Amino acid sequence: MRTILIIGAGRSASSLIKYLLDKSNEENLKIRIGDISLENAQKILNNHPNGEAFILDIFDEKSRREAIQNASIVISMLPARFHLEVAKDCVEFEKSLVTASYISKELMALDEQVKAKGLIFMNEIGLDPGIDHMSAMQIIDRIRDNGAKLILFESFTGGLVAPESDDNLWNYKFTWNPRNVVVAGQGGAAKFIQEGQYKYIPYHRLFRRTEFLEVEGYGKFEALANRDSLKYRAIYGLEGIPTLYRGTMRRVGYSRAWNVFVQLGATDDTYIMEDTENMSYRQFINSFLPYSPTDSVELKLRHYLRIEQDDILWDKLLELDIFNPDKIVGLKEATPAQVLQKILMDKWTLQHDDKDMIVMYHKFGYEIDGEKRQIDSKMVVIGDDQTYTAMAKTVGLPVAIATIQILNKKITKPGVQLPISKEVYTPILKELENYGIVFKEEITPYLGYNHLNV
Amino acid sequence: MRTILIIGAGRSASSLIKYLLDKSNEENLKIRIGDISLENAQKILNNHPNGEAFILDIFDEKSRREAIQNASIVISMLPARFHLEVAKDCVEFEKSLVTASYISKELMALDEQVKAKGLIFMNEIGLDPGIDHMSAMQIIDRIRDNGAKLILFESFTGGLVAPESDDNLWNYKFTWNPRNVVVAGQGGAAKFIQEGQYKYIPYHRLFRRTEFLEVEGYGKFEALANRDSLKYRAIYGLEGIPTLYRGTMRRVGYSRAWNVFVQLGATDDTYIMEDTENMSYRQFINSFLPYSPTDSVELKLRHYLRIEQDDILWDKLLELDIFNPDKIVGLKEATPAQVLQKILMDKWTLQHDDKDMIVMYHKFGYEIDGEKRQIDSKMVVIGDDQTYTAMAKTVGLPVAIATIQILNKKITKPGVQLPISKEVYTPILKELENYGIVFKEEITPYLGYNHLNV
Repeated sequence: MRTILIIGAGRSASSLIKYLLDKSNEENLKIRIGDISLENAQKILNNHPNGEAFILDIFDEKSRREAIQNASIVISMLPARFHLEVAKDCVEFEKSLVTASYISKELMALDEQVKAKGLIFMNEIGLDPGIDHMSAMQIIDRIRDNGAKLILFESFTGGLVAPESDDNLWNYKFTWNPRNVVVAGQGGAAKFIQEGQYKYIPYHRLFRRTEFLEVEGYGKFEALANRDSLKYRAIYGLEGIPTLYRGTMRRVGYSRAWNVFVQLGATDDTYIMEDTENMSYRQFINSFLPYSPTDSVELKLRHYLRIEQDDILWDKLLELDIFNPDKIVGLKEATPAQVLQKILMDKWTLQHDDKDMIVMYHKFGYEIDGEKRQIDSKMVVIGDDQTYTAMAKTVGLPVAIATIQILNKKITKPGVQLPISKEVYTPILKELENYGIVFKEEITPYLGYNHLNV
Repeated sequence: MRTILIIGAGRSASSLIKYLLDKSNEENLKIRIGDISLENAQKILNNHPNGEAFILDIFDEKSRREAIQNASIVISMLPARFHLEVAKDCVEFEKSLVTASYISKELMALDEQVKAKGLIFMNEIGLDPGIDHMSAMQIIDRIRDNGAKLILFESFTGGLVAPESDDNLWNYKFTWNPRNVVVAGQGGAAKFIQEGQYKYIPYHRLFRRTEFLEVEGYGKFEALANRDSLKYRAIYGLEGIPTLYRGTMRRVGYSRAWNVFVQLGATDDTYIMEDTENMSYRQFINSFLPYSPTDSVELKLRHYLRIEQDDILWDKLLELDIFNPDKIVGLKEATPAQVLQKILMDKWTLQHDDKDMIVMYHKFGYEIDGEKRQIDSKMVVIGDDQTYTAMAKTVGLPVAIATIQILNKKITKPGVQLPISKEVYTPILKELENYGIVFKEEITPYLGYNHLNV
């Protein structure tokens, strides 16, 4: 019997756990789930004979180390900042580790020890990062193997509401951590390169610099630039590529309306506002507008941001009820971003029957025999329900599959790594297809930013 | 003979040193100036028999402590972050200390020891902070002593170019640290209160939320909000005041044009751009604009920021030569703010005959016997030349006067403090008048933000 220890059983662990339980007889597995709260884990385990849930406080060193020592392999689904202690224990007790988080500098510092002990620390193997790496590298490697030269790579991912549950004017609901949505794009200018020219977009312009994308059967989307596209040059071996851009997808019109909050300063998470406990939604908006003893908040906002009287954007704002003088924020010592999150959660919380949707879109431009071509590769995943969401499936299944592959010595290269080698991504992408996580490819004429070579 | 030790002889020390040398015979003073470079200090000393310049590296503990031990009183004109070590030595050797910098938390932590030894650590006694505190508190105290209630306090300061040297379209030159001008307003939202309503302005809107001010004989100015006006409630004893606003003055039209750089992201100081060494001014601007193989940087900028073809703002941009493809930035690993500073220094550096100007404008609203009134108090100081600038006079003279007052036991209250008590500000403001630093007051009808009480 091999024991898989899963640390952290949050929303994204459901599909991961189900996959492992379903394989547990065939693969001879015991699934131990340690979490600070038992409830979620027990619900998903559903008394499965090969599963065990137990309370684990990761700051309780003794029980954490004991659990790790007794495992065959460890999966950490904790927030990224908590992985390091788990990783150090894994080194000490010689256990391989799987996470869906970005590799931190501190984790990378363990690489030599991990290699010396023949362990595999596989990270960035969820959705984004994860499926994005694997699905992109599969096509990048194929293009290169054919002797072609890559001249463009663009990649877009969105966590959205499924079309059948899409019933508000923003075409958006919180399918993941709402806080991350409110502060999305903050923390530094977006950087990317287009046709050899470096481009920088400050946060306050980010939502007015969108690109458009079409996914057959799902309509039009828009994308805004991620913070640092350039770091993927080294990771994917794309040094010298003239166009490299990564972005986040929304439904068309979202960003233009969201920009109202950015312009007001309502997404700021760096300072505490005065008396948010007794503040009305209307006062919240008014606190970002010039004082007037007589003019309405509505007209001040329209004037401040030059919103035309017939602009559909206005209805999006009304739908959120932001001008309501009677709805009280009721949060103590809150930042603007926290207040805004509260207002949005009234309207954007997924309802019981709602389903989420993950969309991923890659573009690969390349040159072969003097000719420029492009491959577009697209994936859409719809959630089953509120437990087996598209997010839980796309984050959890690659983690689960990789874990079995490592246990079964199908993945053998030791070290702190991410899934960009053929050995890793080929079997995982293949198996994901059985779970409806499928990319559709098409070859198009090259459509870069200067395809006429002006 | 009393020895005044001045640590740091930068641009703002000229008037300070001249004042002390002029008083040195009458007051029996020896003026020792310690600086990492001798040049400036020696030039200002001009072989005065009561002056002595010497090389002082403040990180050389031994010589720093020796110099402080041998002084009667210490003036630190160092950048604020370097005061603390000097202050600790002053406590140990029982010397009073004068600085023109804001009181840091660390400095305030010395308060008990300073009081126990009967020392005076007088800070924030330059221009802003300094003359602003003293001139405001003099009127606030007078209004209160008359039994009136303060309902509005607004205060504006600007370091500008004198009218006779004002020969560019921005009506602005660097009269102080250029870097501070480029990053002005960054680091957090501006906060203030108007008629009881808290207002917050994010950085990217700051330059579009100006107020206008008129100074007789000097024309119209505009003001943008400082970062935190609210902290002055506690300092000035203005708790509960419905309107409190502090701002920075520029000539009208500056902010609207500067906003172009803010919107582009060209004032960002948080990341290094790629290859700034070989970047042209034109490429710098283009890096913040969408890629196009054909459209000009000029038209892209006009479209991006909706700049009309006949907007005078455009001439301000042309004057800076920002579209020049042949001028090279030539800085290694520079931030956008550093590149922009380089571009501006080509045009905004004070020429040899140029003079600077300091403008300060206070508004005090108050209620007495059921009637609302207002006092406006304004000061304009023009520099004599490039040595005795208006900035050097207004920063250095209050420091110098306070130092003599402390030496002569005219200021006696011990502790870490700023100049807000009558004992301190009355004689200093009186003597500043001899040097042309004079406030003109006028009583006007109350002109707050809701004077009709709608």
